[in-house]
Amino acid sequence: MQNKVLAFGEIMLRLSPPYFKRFSQATSFDVTFGGGEANVAVSLSNFGIPVDYVTRLPNNDIGDACIRYLKQFGVNTNKILRGGERIGIYFLENGASARPSKVIYDRAHSAISNAKPEMFNWELLLEDVNWFHWTGITPAISQNLADICLDAIEVAKSKGITISCDLNYRSKLWKYGKNPSDIMPELVKDCDIAIGNEEDADKVLGIKAPDTDISSGILDPEKYEYVVKEMHKKYPNLKTTAITLRGSISASHNTWAAILYNNQKLFISPHYDITHIVDRVGGGDSFVAGLIYGFLNFNEDYQGQLMILLIKF
Amino acid sequence: MQNKVLAFGEIMLRLSPPYFKRFSQATSFDVTFGGGEANVAVSLSNFGIPVDYVTRLPNNDIGDACIRYLKQFGVNTNKILRGGERIGIYFLENGASARPSKVIYDRAHSAISNAKPEMFNWELLLEDVNWFHWTGITPAISQNLADICLDAIEVAKSKGITISCDLNYRSKLWKYGKNPSDIMPELVKDCDIAIGNEEDADKVLGIKAPDTDISSGILDPEKYEYVVKEMHKKYPNLKTTAITLRGSISASHNTWAAILYNNQKLFISPHYDITHIVDRVGGGDSFVAGLIYGFLNFNEDYQGQLMILLIKF
Amino acid sequence: MQNKVLAFGEIMLRLSPPYFKRFSQATSFDVTFGGGEANVAVSLSNFGIPVDYVTRLPNNDIGDACIRYLKQFGVNTNKILRGGERIGIYFLENGASARPSKVIYDRAHSAISNAKPEMFNWELLLEDVNWFHWTGITPAISQNLADICLDAIEVAKSKGITISCDLNYRSKLWKYGKNPSDIMPELVKDCDIAIGNEEDADKVLGIKAPDTDISSGILDPEKYEYVVKEMHKKYPNLKTTAITLRGSISASHNTWAAILYNNQKLFISPHYDITHIVDRVGGGDSFVAGLIYGFLNFNEDYQGQLMILLIKF
Amino acid sequence: MQNKVLAFGEIMLRLSPPYFKRFSQATSFDVTFGGGEANVAVSLSNFGIPVDYVTRLPNNDIGDACIRYLKQFGVNTNKILRGGERIGIYFLENGASARPSKVIYDRAHSAISNAKPEMFNWELLLEDVNWFHWTGITPAISQNLADICLDAIEVAKSKGITISCDLNYRSKLWKYGKNPSDIMPELVKDCDIAIGNEEDADKVLGIKAPDTDISSGILDPEKYEYVVKEMHKKYPNLKTTAITLRGSISASHNTWAAILYNNQKLFISPHYDITHIVDRVGGGDSFVAGLIYGFLNFNEDYQGQLMILLIKF
Amino acid sequence: MQNKVLAFGEIMLRLSPPYFKRFSQATSFDVTFGGGEANVAVSLSNFGIPVDYVTRLPNNDIGDACIRYLKQFGVNTNKILRGGERIGIYFLENGASARPSKVIYDRAHSAISNAKPEMFNWELLLEDVNWFHWTGITPAISQNLADICLDAIEVAKSKGITISCDLNYRSKLWKYGKNPSDIMPELVKDCDIAIGNEEDADKVLGIKAPDTDISSGILDPEKYEYVVKEMHKKYPNLKTTAITLRGSISASHNTWAAILYNNQKLFISPHYDITHIVDRVGGGDSFVAGLIYGFLNFNEDYQGQLMILLIKF
Amino acid sequence: MQNKVLAFGEIMLRLSPPYFKRFSQATSFDVTFGGGEANVAVSLSNFGIPVDYVTRLPNNDIGDACIRYLKQFGVNTNKILRGGERIGIYFLENGASARPSKVIYDRAHSAISNAKPEMFNWELLLEDVNWFHWTGITPAISQNLADICLDAIEVAKSKGITISCDLNYRSKLWKYGKNPSDIMPELVKDCDIAIGNEEDADKVLGIKAPDTDISSGILDPEKYEYVVKEMHKKYPNLKTTAITLRGSISASHNTWAAILYNNQKLFISPHYDITHIVDRVGGGDSFVAGLIYGFLNFNEDYQGQLMILLIKF
Repeated sequence: MQNKVLAFGEIMLRLSPPYFKRFSQATSFDVTFGGGEANVAVSLSNFGIPVDYVTRLPNNDIGDACIRYLKQFGVNTNKILRGGERIGIYFLENGASARPSKVIYDRAHSAISNAKPEMFNWELLLEDVNWFHWTGITPAISQNLADICLDAIEVAKSKGITISCDLNYRSKLWKYGKNPSDIMPELVKDCDIAIGNEEDADKVLGIKAPDTDISSGILDPEKYEYVVKEMHKKYPNLKTTAITLRGSISASHNTWAAILYNNQKLFISPHYDITHIVDRVGGGDSFVAGLIYGFLNFNEDYQGQLMILLIKF
Repeated sequence: MQNKVLAFGEIMLRLSPPYFKRFSQATSFDVTFGGGEANVAVSLSNFGIPVDYVTRLPNNDIGDACIRYLKQFGVNTNKILRGGERIGIYFLENGASARPSKVIYDRAHSAISNAKPEMFNWELLLEDVNWFHWTGITPAISQNLADICLDAIEVAKSKGITISCDLNYRSKLWKYGKNPSDIMPELVKDCDIAIGNEEDADKVLGIKAPDTDISSGILDPEKYEYVVKEMHKKYPNLKTTAITLRGSISASHNTWAAILYNNQKLFISPHYDITHIVDRVGGGDSFVAGLIYGFLNFNEDYQGQLMILLIKF
Repeated sequence: MQNKVLAFGEIMLRLSPPYFKRFSQATSFDVTFGGGEANVAVSLSNFGIPVDYVTRLPNNDIGDACIRYLKQFGVNTNKILRGGERIGIYFLENGASARPSKVIYDRAHSAISNAKPEMFNWELLLEDVNWFHWTGITPAISQNLADICLDAIEVAKSKGITISCDLNYRSKLWKYGKNPSDIMPELVKDCDIAIGNEEDADKVLGIKAPDTDISSGILDPEKYEYVVKEMHKKYPNLKTTAITLRGSISASHNTWAAILYNNQKLFISPHYDITHIVDRVGGGDSFVAGLIYGFLNFNEDYQGQLMILLIKF
Repeated sequence: MQNKVLAFGEIMLRLSPPYFKRFSQATSFDVTFGGGEANVAVSLSNFGIPVDYVTRLPNNDIGDACIRYLKQFGVNTNKILRGGERIGIYFLENGASARPSKVIYDRAHSAISNAKPEMFNWELLLEDVNWFHWTGITPAISQNLADICLDAIEVAKSKGITISCDLNYRSKLWKYGKNPSDIMPELVKDCDIAIGNEEDADKVLGIKAPDTDISSGILDPEKYEYVVKEMHKKYPNLKTTAITLRGSISASHNTWAAILYNNQKLFISPHYDITHIVDRVGGGDSFVAGLIYGFLNFNEDYQGQLMILLIKF
Repeated sequence: MQNKVLAFGEIMLRLSPPYFKRFSQATSFDVTFGGGEANVAVSLSNFGIPVDYVTRLPNNDIGDACIRYLKQFGVNTNKILRGGERIGIYFLENGASARPSKVIYDRAHSAISNAKPEMFNWELLLEDVNWFHWTGITPAISQNLADICLDAIEVAKSKGITISCDLNYRSKLWKYGKNPSDIMPELVKDCDIAIGNEEDADKVLGIKAPDTDISSGILDPEKYEYVVKEMHKKYPNLKTTAITLRGSISASHNTWAAILYNNQKLFISPHYDITHIVDRVGGGDSFVAGLIYGFLNFNEDYQGQLMILLIKF
Repeated sequence: MQNKVLAFGEIMLRLSPPYFKRFSQATSFDVTFGGGEANVAVSLSNFGIPVDYVTRLPNNDIGDACIRYLKQFGVNTNKILRGGERIGIYFLENGASARPSKVIYDRAHSAISNAKPEMFNWELLLEDVNWFHWTGITPAISQNLADICLDAIEVAKSKGITISCDLNYRSKLWKYGKNPSDIMPELVKDCDIAIGNEEDADKVLGIKAPDTDISSGILDPEKYEYVVKEMHKKYPNLKTTAITLRGSISASHNTWAAILYNNQKLFISPHYDITHIVDRVGGGDSFVAGLIYGFLNFNEDYQGQLMILLIKF
């Protein structure tokens, strides 16, 4: 069977002042669409992997434009549901130098956030795929979406589909009365691959490395070894875990490194300096897409390709 | 006392593809802010009339940008409430030639639509003004807003403030279980000046001219004389009523005419051809601003200034 | 079987100064892709008809961008061949008022113009379609393309596929030593539907109305009745012929009319004035797309939908 | 001897909001350079006539950019003086529909306005030319410039150079204490060709047609015959006079007509409607360039080419 | 009494090629308004401090646009005088990497530069403020402006208003026959707070550190301690002096440091590297705004907030 | 005799996505013209040296625009031949950070590539010049162009004109059946000045330094001393050779150094870091222009001016 990935999640309208203008200076917004899972889908499609994207979009011209956006990159949009009130929006002011980027979310009441479990027939949706990708953003949005994720994971598991999850803890979400620790463990336990950073492990799964100081931006492999081993102990279904570490020297200069725990072996990437950043958003998603691509194509460890660049995909 | 107008209503973020591009072609949106009542406020301020704008805006950078927009035109924004989830948005694709303009509203859950009556202290808000302007759009949004309008009108009436209302029937609104005929009569009965078109009179106030065919775009003064006289009969507090008639030969070519019933005299404007339209939205609002300006400055009938141009204000 | 159209022809990179700037003023070009057959494909896909586009594009980022352009509108690009040197280019300066539009073609040596008959397996390409659309532009480019058109038409005919042809005479092409009258009759004779203007009938098929003066822009149905009847006499396989008449009062103001001869009945459209033109290119293609859509959906004469607007699709 | 034209006058930096934006909406200005005499020079160079432009520009990057602008069109800039404080600027808001264009001049203290007669060696400057063109704008700026014009005309006359003058009355200029009637007659008396409209004839030369009503926009040849004949009576050196009549139905729709009195014969152009105007400025200058081109190339009356389009050159 | 700052000085129209384009490449200019004192006013208003701006602007649409610019940021513009010929302009080409920024001033004859002392009623203008800010740019423009500054300072002093001065020596100004040392000491002697760099102390006040080499960009606190102590000796009214040191490694990479002498204590900031600079202009003004904000809010030394970022405010 | 340089080669239309957008994101291309020899010509003209550019351009509006581009910088275009099919095009995607720039050439069949030796009368073309500049790009395009180069060099040599050559090896060219080593030695042997990098010396002239590793980016003068001395041994007519070394740390950060062997003395430049690169293309050409300018003006070694910045010229 040919590889086919299905990614599930929200995709939002992204509006950002051109160049490095501020919200207070903008008289136009650059328009694109994005979201963690959709970014992974687009990257995989660019790499040549067939991808379905599953989400729910309103039945209007902006929903159409979003579908057109995905289609141009070859992502299959036939499984997207139409309906609901609106597409989620985020406003992004690109940072530069000492001024950090700023994101304003206007995603409440989006078509996908109001979706109901009975709208998704996962048996059908997952029929022709062998990889299912989701992230911790989705169950953070609403109880319904947490339930829909669970449905999807259970069906995927029953079909022997590989399941990957980017833990992606977002403190601004999780507003519907549940904590990540109430919801995520049940979702993660059937996954094959987990990707996260130390904060994700701590906030989402309750696994904390001893004596770590994230803010220093210095990677201490021993401490992360502890974290990934704890994760695999707690979630024995996991075959692979990747921990990424992005340091932010300035909005224009980040550092990047990752460790990969695969088949009980630990791989540590070099430490990269990424300067002159044009568009920071989606860097982690590119990493995930590269990881999935690697597993689908090489079926082996491939440490050298860990870093997918942060530049606009 | 110096004249001061207070306008109350929603103001939305307006996003439109540049030039005459379509939604399917746009990679950027021109950004501005607009709404019927805010357009009137901006025009009046441009004409030199002190204006307060009252609305509710979210406490984020987009809300700030909206306030900055109003401020630059000299509109007083100190009475604007901050809070709520989001600013209402409308997407506008400018029509041209035979292709009509297209508007997609994403205004549900806006800060103002979720406002509560107790947030507005109309005694205080209306303290230093002598003209209150509202439109039929506001009570169409929610029961709360209908109640807030009623509060404002009652306080304005009690203070002897002139009240103008643009009936502005919008079929896409009025979704909260009430019809305009349930709500509007009580609000209109204390107004001094009403502005509308024939559809407004019919749908909002239930007054229908005999044998009229709006679609012909031909103005038959006798029929409209009947309409305005019926309005004044039903709403004896009204001193002035204006009926506007916009014909749409194409998106680039409209016609414009108006009749004014003032102190029991009927005035009929010439019939204008407006071609080469750059930005159609807000033409009716400009008319209203011109009307208010005229009443504030000339205290008499001034038929010659009926037409305020449709061009970008 | 579900309807599926296959359109075949060149698609070019279109570069045009923004707004109404002239070549001598431009420091940027708006970028899109276009061509008579591809425009038809995009319009049909926008109308909801499944469409394959067949052409040949170079294996580089510009070829990829062209495919991405078609994909976003849902056109199936899987049958597009990759290879060859370059994509054809046309530079377009949009006219306005008394200044006509100007087109500079740089299409020689394009991947499709250098394509060879053996590259196209029409049996396979036409396997799942029931409508084949081509235009007189393609055989005007090279002997190879004329041969490829003939191959396609013969296979389509043998499979019972409906064949439509936009005659589209272009005096700047036909440089490889053949005249349209050498090539086109053999190609047209198996078609079911032909679309053209009077010049096409004359230059391509040698059928000339008596005493017509195209430049007057006045449609004389009797004369065109003669033309279409002659066409059907000469090409008895034709079931339908449409003759379009575009008059050019200025670059911003065209007139449009068409006659349709279908099942031996003649239909004459009203005469349309199209003013405030934003982007004239592709108006005829829109008409063809509307015609095909009509035949696929209504299976009857449908005179009222003759005019598909000239505006940017 | 090959034809060579020398045009003399100011050239200004032109700053205008893009598209039809208003000054109150602009966050960028389109940048170009213009002025009546320079527009004539550029048009003539585009028509293939060698042209020198003589002016004075500041010795800075903006002066350089202006020279680069002229150079790109092939205008010879070697005779331009460098020095002075600044380049004159005009801000232009393009009108549309009922909203007229708006021009704000910021041209005082420009390098050319402060030029002194001794800076210009007209014997040398006019050495290799056979046509000298100036306009009534230049002597309206300062006494020095009036003196410099007189110097240039006297030298040109002494060399047998053809002299053309666009009367170009501008009420906003003439602020240095003189009226056009004090200055212009002496300058016009040695000219061979004069171009103007009725207002020019009246305000500049004191010749008024009986009973004319410019505002009606209706051309009454008999009245203009009187004007041109009076001009030729008063200025017997004149061989040709052209009177242009531009009517302004709206900012997007002008009318245009002209009469030409040449070798004692009167020619009357058709009446043109010019709609969908993109950029109105410089229409009269294009007419003058066409007239000069005609005289240089045809040496005869050529009524048919009177109208040079108003569109961006 | 609530804090209110009044800043006085010129504000200019700023025209700059977009992105990092050069003057020789630009076909549009980004439009904004700026000036040392106005930048301080805007920053303070952004920080929430009520600010009046006092200047003189021409009575035209460009003057209106400037006022609209200030108004949008909440700066009170009611005290701005209208009149005069023109607004000052500066053209800015943003540098990048090894190519420095380039500024062309076209500010002569501006409305403010031609202002007369009797136009400013400082008793009235300063009535409701408790902080007056001016810079050394203003008295450098004309004798009138030096006199106006003196008037303002004397009235401010008499009212007990805190006075801050950014010494801001500009070698391109001071063209009216006076040196800074003729004018500035009398203006500085009544100030409470002075801000400058070493060149300012030397050129404006004649205080030179021994053995300093500015070009090295290395801050030697002892030498600056000498400078600030000398300043306080010569101007005993000074309570606080700040010396800023900006090093320019390239147009995209500056360094920044500052020392503050307050209540006879010396504070030395860390040394900052500022890379990836988007828009350098106004960095010093941001520092001043931060300083004023700090004094108004904290009434104490606050060394940690010395660095206000250089990025577009 | 005044210095005058003639540069000969192709000039192409350069189309690049604005800012740092990718081909997959661009809806417009920035338009300019460039090519190694034309860049040298423009730079020299900017430095004040009279320059002729010789090439062949198609007789259409794009050819005209190219000539206008050169003219604006003062390059003499009178010697340019018109004719042929098309102008060569290159598409440039500017790299940033870790993403390299990408160039797609569409230059085959250009007017110059199809030029024939008999079109160029070098006796006439070189009549008034004292410096001839060509590069190794030109003979790489076609046998005809190699022959034309040889003609030009021979005539230049016979007239005592200084000849400079930028070796400029381009692996993507040289497709007409010859290798650089077949063609270049005969062309280089009469040159006075050669510029190249180590790859050029190796691939073009067959001179390889022992044990060098270009990719390290470390300059080892001794090895390059060997290379330049070998070059001068093999080509005794050479008076000067420059070897440039550009290291690419990232697309936004290059290093630059050069050695110059002149009159048998070796000069080694410092090592420059060039960060925050805006537009990398043409850096080497700027170096060559600086070198020629230096020789024409200083007639001596001038090591300090070796580095011409990489920024947009």
